[in-house]
Amino acid sequence: MRVTRAFPIVVSGPSGSGKTTLVEGLLDRVPGLRRSVSTTTRAPRPGEIDGKSYFFTGEEDFEKLKKGKLIEWAKVHGYFYGTPRDFVEETLESGFDVVLSVDVQGGRQVKKVFPDAVTIFILPPSYEVLEQRIRHRATDPAGTIKTRLENAREELRALPEYEYVVVNDGLEEAVAALCSIVLSERHRRARYEGSFLEKF
Amino acid sequence: MRVTRAFPIVVSGPSGSGKTTLVEGLLDRVPGLRRSVSTTTRAPRPGEIDGKSYFFTGEEDFEKLKKGKLIEWAKVHGYFYGTPRDFVEETLESGFDVVLSVDVQGGRQVKKVFPDAVTIFILPPSYEVLEQRIRHRATDPAGTIKTRLENAREELRALPEYEYVVVNDGLEEAVAALCSIVLSERHRRARYEGSFLEKF
Repeated sequence: MRVTRAFPIVVSGPSGSGKTTLVEGLLDRVPGLRRSVSTTTRAPRPGEIDGKSYFFTGEEDFEKLKKGKLIEWAKVHGYFYGTPRDFVEETLESGFDVVLSVDVQGGRQVKKVFPDAVTIFILPPSYEVLEQRIRHRATDPAGTIKTRLENAREELRALPEYEYVVVNDGLEEAVAALCSIVLSERHRRARYEGSFLEKF
Repeated sequence: MRVTRAFPIVVSGPSGSGKTTLVEGLLDRVPGLRRSVSTTTRAPRPGEIDGKSYFFTGEEDFEKLKKGKLIEWAKVHGYFYGTPRDFVEETLESGFDVVLSVDVQGGRQVKKVFPDAVTIFILPPSYEVLEQRIRHRATDPAGTIKTRLENAREELRALPEYEYVVVNDGLEEAVAALCSIVLSERHRRARYEGSFLEKF
């Protein structure tokens, strides 16, 4: 029986760190987790399900959500993306830890709204590896590569704000590290329900 | 390759919490750990090895050690027991996390000397279970049972000083929790060698 309160888990890391794959591994392995579902103004792609992949919404409605209903939001390639506060709060209340895969600005906002959030930064094995991974996404035009590298540098500067660092130099090991962080945080004394500890 | 500094792990819990068995499980499962070896003035029992089970020493030498060479010490049933500081420091320097199974007073001393120590408190499933376990140690005379129960109450009062709480209501689950705490603490950002993070 779980006797600690559920908490948000912020996972950040520059593009090319392998963050997305690691989060998949974490969700597959640890029970009691839910992924945060974002709201977006972009159109659904084939196979995407409303309320599961994303909450799809119009620009007008998104503007309304921006007034207090989103923990964080950003405009990417002309579309809006945001994290609905209600969804995260309700999921936590139903006893599931919520995984939020967000950039460092989003991470800051989550930590502001939920000071008990766990923050994890995913690092590639080295900056050189990161650069290679970004450059080898052959589909990107040269300008995009430059922007991606600059963004990566910018994200890396926020590393000192994070509580945990996982170096992704082996998928299995890195996923295991992520899992251990979540499992161990469930045993943090400050997260125990007061009523439980008072029995002693 | 490990890139975080090794750290002490304080495990406390009242007699009857199952602490000793859990620590055995932790040491069996997680590589890179060493148990702290105590110094004692009591005589070796059959099978005990000097420097492995304990460092066996005379009272006179123990008195000298008490002047700065011990992280903590206590007198139990007429014999002295202490944690030698040099042993812990050298083990940490050689890259092993050191597990210290100590009472709450010992835990406080360890945390004072090593502020980066991880502190874990082991709880029985309930106070009633604890009481039963202590009472059912049939070999103890009634007076000892009373002292043990009082000591347990006293230890429990220190629970708010600990960072993690593991409830021992199933051996496998409790050992897994202990292991996850140690593994996750190896990924704490503040423990990374500066030289490693500076590469980014």
